[in-house]
Amino acid sequence: MSTGQERFLESARRSDQFTFTFGDVLDSSTLRAVMREVDVVYHMAANADIRGGVASPRKDIEQNTLATFEVLEAMRHVGTGRIVFASSAAALGEPEVFPTPERCAIPVQTSLYGASKMAGEGFVAAYCESYGFEGYVFRFVSLLGPRYPHGHVFDFVRQLLGHPATLTILGDGTQRKSYLHVQDCVRALIHICDEIRPENRPSRQFEVYHLGLPEVCLVRDSAQWICHEMGLAPKLEFGTGNRGWIGDSPVVLLDTQKALSTGWRPTHSIESSIRQTVRWLLEHQWIFETRK
Amino acid sequence: MSTGQERFLESARRSDQFTFTFGDVLDSSTLRAVMREVDVVYHMAANADIRGGVASPRKDIEQNTLATFEVLEAMRHVGTGRIVFASSAAALGEPEVFPTPERCAIPVQTSLYGASKMAGEGFVAAYCESYGFEGYVFRFVSLLGPRYPHGHVFDFVRQLLGHPATLTILGDGTQRKSYLHVQDCVRALIHICDEIRPENRPSRQFEVYHLGLPEVCLVRDSAQWICHEMGLAPKLEFGTGNRGWIGDSPVVLLDTQKALSTGWRPTHSIESSIRQTVRWLLEHQWIFETRK
Repeated sequence: MSTGQERFLESARRSDQFTFTFGDVLDSSTLRAVMREVDVVYHMAANADIRGGVASPRKDIEQNTLATFEVLEAMRHVGTGRIVFASSAAALGEPEVFPTPERCAIPVQTSLYGASKMAGEGFVAAYCESYGFEGYVFRFVSLLGPRYPHGHVFDFVRQLLGHPATLTILGDGTQRKSYLHVQDCVRALIHICDEIRPENRPSRQFEVYHLGLPEVCLVRDSAQWICHEMGLAPKLEFGTGNRGWIGDSPVVLLDTQKALSTGWRPTHSIESSIRQTVRWLLEHQWIFETRK
Repeated sequence: MSTGQERFLESARRSDQFTFTFGDVLDSSTLRAVMREVDVVYHMAANADIRGGVASPRKDIEQNTLATFEVLEAMRHVGTGRIVFASSAAALGEPEVFPTPERCAIPVQTSLYGASKMAGEGFVAAYCESYGFEGYVFRFVSLLGPRYPHGHVFDFVRQLLGHPATLTILGDGTQRKSYLHVQDCVRALIHICDEIRPENRPSRQFEVYHLGLPEVCLVRDSAQWICHEMGLAPKLEFGTGNRGWIGDSPVVLLDTQKALSTGWRPTHSIESSIRQTVRWLLEHQWIFETRK
């Protein structure tokens, strides 16, 4: 619950198929306890604050790299061997090919976050080879939609609620990025890992899938949609350069043919996802109180 | 000193330019203390026992991945920013291109050791981007020569000293691997990181170099040379398949053009390196007492 919120669980708690355990993902005894008799582990817990990695590198190593290792170890001890791992387009550094396919050149890492996620991918693959695990790695672009308490939409809305007359944008606004609605993302994970029949599954025990929309938007276009959705016309103050921060990638666009070939289809465009995120944030402004 | 030996330091200790500190590479205070006023850190400490990773995965994660992070953190705290990191051909999993160049496809990791080394590479690159470090990553093939207390030559000689009539070989003996003499390896590190003039250095802060000989030998040929050097003609008992153990790679051959382009040249062939290793082991049989 470092960035998650108990309030997000209200509707899930009403289901008798849902169990919640509060615990530290670095605590092996908690992990082993919750993983007994589990068929598949969706390991999504992570420190997702790429920008913060420069100030707090240990957080990326502990919460992403080490946590993934502890999850794998707990699975091995209790005899659960199917894992879905949330990796990131950031693990690709600054690719040279766009849209970027799963099989591309070994990246030069540009952030601790990306490096920590690629480390997790490697551990998952090694557990598949060493212990017969079945591993699915998904590299996500940035997500949008309800309950997403960070990223540029969150930052922009928070800024505009505080001072509606100006919006400060990191970088020159020309960063071109793909996004994905959280519901499309979750549907992809379940579809690819759970719904496709065994005989249609890839033969290998370890598979990497790229997830994202086949389009990009400019950060400055996103700013316009956010301002429009809020009914504001602030002065936009841009930074310099096409990177918003150390480790930011000026272009993010993944080749998602492999995921699409399974029959999965994203249903939300970038613009509608951004506008929906803004509306959700405006209707749930308590979220800003949780992230000072 | 998990695999190293104090006795290896006898000649180094006679130099007044040498200082030895006994400490744990996971202990940040020791690391910070020894790194003050250091120009460049050659980070070679690791658990190099690839085969043992299946039984003791935590060792690879702690001694390779976490240790590399702690070394980088200590360097950041004391203001030292130049690092040479010993990675491995094993970090490339099972490549599809031979000889394998530095820029190849993102590997599917086949061992915890390889995954833990690739994780370390990523951390070094991220520190270059985030904190202005200068990082040199070297992916070694297996080393040979004096003082190398593991690997197939060590195993074969130990077997033959114990029972000269039979030699058990893991796998079918057709594994084709490149090797490098430890002296050629050390000369490459010093030449590339220290001796080439700044104006001839690559412009980027992070560089990866492959190190190895441009030849391979079959494990069964190596066995013949070892037997010949020991004056023995044992019965050779082969396993099955072209992998000696889980995570073993049937072919290891690196493209070393990038390292060669700096002027470095290896001087020992595989056969002479193997024979020299055998002679060193026979002259220093106390080494077998240290590794039961």
